[in-house]
Amino acid sequence: MSYDERLRRFRAQVAGRADLVFLPISADLQYLTGIPRGAPTFGAVMHPGAWLEGLWMTPARGPVLTLPRMTAEFGGLGSDAVEVRVLGDFDDPAALVRDIVQGFGLGDAPRIAIGDRAHAETVSALHSLLPGARFLSATDQLRPLRAVKSAEEIASMRRAGAITEAAWADVLPKLRHGMTELELVMEIDFQLRRHGSYGSSFNTSLYNAGPDHPLTLGRHEVTWRRAMRPPMSILTDFGAIYEGYCYDFGRTVAFGAPDADFVRVHALVMASQRAGIAAMRAGAVTAAEVDAAARRVIEDAGLGAAFRHRLGHSIGLDVHEPPFLTQTDHTVLQDGMLFTVEPSILFDARCSARVEDVVVARPGGGEPLTAGFQELYVVD
Amino acid sequence: MSYDERLRRFRAQVAGRADLVFLPISADLQYLTGIPRGAPTFGAVMHPGAWLEGLWMTPARGPVLTLPRMTAEFGGLGSDAVEVRVLGDFDDPAALVRDIVQGFGLGDAPRIAIGDRAHAETVSALHSLLPGARFLSATDQLRPLRAVKSAEEIASMRRAGAITEAAWADVLPKLRHGMTELELVMEIDFQLRRHGSYGSSFNTSLYNAGPDHPLTLGRHEVTWRRAMRPPMSILTDFGAIYEGYCYDFGRTVAFGAPDADFVRVHALVMASQRAGIAAMRAGAVTAAEVDAAARRVIEDAGLGAAFRHRLGHSIGLDVHEPPFLTQTDHTVLQDGMLFTVEPSILFDARCSARVEDVVVARPGGGEPLTAGFQELYVVD
Repeated sequence: MSYDERLRRFRAQVAGRADLVFLPISADLQYLTGIPRGAPTFGAVMHPGAWLEGLWMTPARGPVLTLPRMTAEFGGLGSDAVEVRVLGDFDDPAALVRDIVQGFGLGDAPRIAIGDRAHAETVSALHSLLPGARFLSATDQLRPLRAVKSAEEIASMRRAGAITEAAWADVLPKLRHGMTELELVMEIDFQLRRHGSYGSSFNTSLYNAGPDHPLTLGRHEVTWRRAMRPPMSILTDFGAIYEGYCYDFGRTVAFGAPDADFVRVHALVMASQRAGIAAMRAGAVTAAEVDAAARRVIEDAGLGAAFRHRLGHSIGLDVHEPPFLTQTDHTVLQDGMLFTVEPSILFDARCSARVEDVVVARPGGGEPLTAGFQELYVVD
Repeated sequence: MSYDERLRRFRAQVAGRADLVFLPISADLQYLTGIPRGAPTFGAVMHPGAWLEGLWMTPARGPVLTLPRMTAEFGGLGSDAVEVRVLGDFDDPAALVRDIVQGFGLGDAPRIAIGDRAHAETVSALHSLLPGARFLSATDQLRPLRAVKSAEEIASMRRAGAITEAAWADVLPKLRHGMTELELVMEIDFQLRRHGSYGSSFNTSLYNAGPDHPLTLGRHEVTWRRAMRPPMSILTDFGAIYEGYCYDFGRTVAFGAPDADFVRVHALVMASQRAGIAAMRAGAVTAAEVDAAARRVIEDAGLGAAFRHRLGHSIGLDVHEPPFLTQTDHTVLQDGMLFTVEPSILFDARCSARVEDVVVARPGGGEPLTAGFQELYVVD
């Protein structure tokens, strides 16, 4: 689907709901225009006028892209399809925004739809300029368009998956007893980039359920220094970025020959994933039913308590998108929706397993975008 | 300075300016409470209620930290100093916020100060709950407190600098002709973490001024595949994170023996930096005067046009903080302000140089937090 067509559908979606739309440099903007976002940084890297970086439009007029001079010159955000207005180094950002908004001929109390990832500063500035304004989420308005992926989007995700698997293939020969978790994380991040990824779609993570390995979000440096030695199970979670699309992939590695319990747990996780994928019949099943189909395999084996989380989430330009494969989500799957299918059984540091692939919902069941490395990989 | 004291000063700052404050999980919150932020991700990693993650207070009441259950359990954000209210998986975030705001006993038209890095969603939600509210930037209110660093903050920055230099010392022996830029970037990122950094304070970058090496912000993958071979100058830009504090460090590497021009350019950059550091006399000089002192060295050599940017920026919990060492910033330096001092001369791919260290303004002149590796490093 062309960007023109996406824009046309978005205009139709917001007509009657919002009088003005602002989208910051974000996944939402990339969806509508192809204008890429950069990698985020831990510490803020500020430049004057950053709050007005983004796209302005109404259901009938625009879009206009506003950029500070520094971003316009160095940001690589040029787009032939969109009118660009540049903020000079000594210009007033509020004046530029006022000019654009006045050009759109809005009334006194416009309804303004703003992308969720805009800075609070942007909303405050608009509220000062237009005190009668009301605000809603532009991201919510884009969700129905973004939920079902076009053939081009699925092709980009397939390419992101191919890069991810090519990276994993080159990581495996590097695994050895005594390697630290940090060395493995950095090897994965290196191989992703070496194979053409812009970076890591989220923070590359290793899990298991050992007592010294808390599943602490974003704080994996706690165990970076630990050497991986048998008997140990290591569960990976990472993905490539291709043209802004985010992959999400997981496999299990055994350090040392796995015992019978570990082999059984891994086989159950793989069977659970197969059941979940088979259940993904577009038009005929809800997200909750897919979760149940995969979960049943692990529950029937008496291990339901060790599968502690939802089966998966939608994915595309963001890592986590709605809808979710979870017991409370009753969305009917549509042809072209993409979900991760990622069952796990987490016992302890030597007997835990997970698997994760991105899968397209199709009328006859799910079509996985990656399907390699199905066997438990053993580092002898 | 204790967190209690920081909170006391912040209350005094906002009294009379704002009736309610909201700070998301951010550098601002870390400054006030020590509650850490995690590494950001390229693709959004969503969880329900993420928009209310943060701290609520008034000049007299609170603070209260609100967290969704998942963040509360796995986020490692616990704090004994702050009351925590947890949003259950099926609770309504707006109702929780309404309850807290009502508990504070605000009037009909509160002035609400919001951290700049809050999501737009948070502002929209508050606007719906409190239609008479006006908004201002809580970040701006914190700037005067954050600009001058305490002894503890300078100690953390010194530690971040020591980690950065220890990493660089271990990177240097790995340099070899034919290495790709990506291999160097990943080696730097690995060594930073190996020496105790939480991650990279911003995206580790390599520059020079070659025609195929655009200074494109955040898009350095353009040249990742290039092998570094003589004659070439490589300019590094990276830094460690220690307890949330961001370092920023730069050195120049010559691939192959440098010619006389390259040696001269490097020596000029080092002399310019020394002049800038010497000029950083707290209480006696403006930011613009420091910029001028360093720039003069390069201008006097007839190379002013090749020094294309400001001399530096403040730094601390964020990479770029105001004030800036630039010709339009007339802030008088105060004892304990931290600035990068980072002159460069950018000619072409074989003759460019930069240096960057973080420096404390002191009454007698600047005190650098790092000062190693002053010689041009040559990879033979």
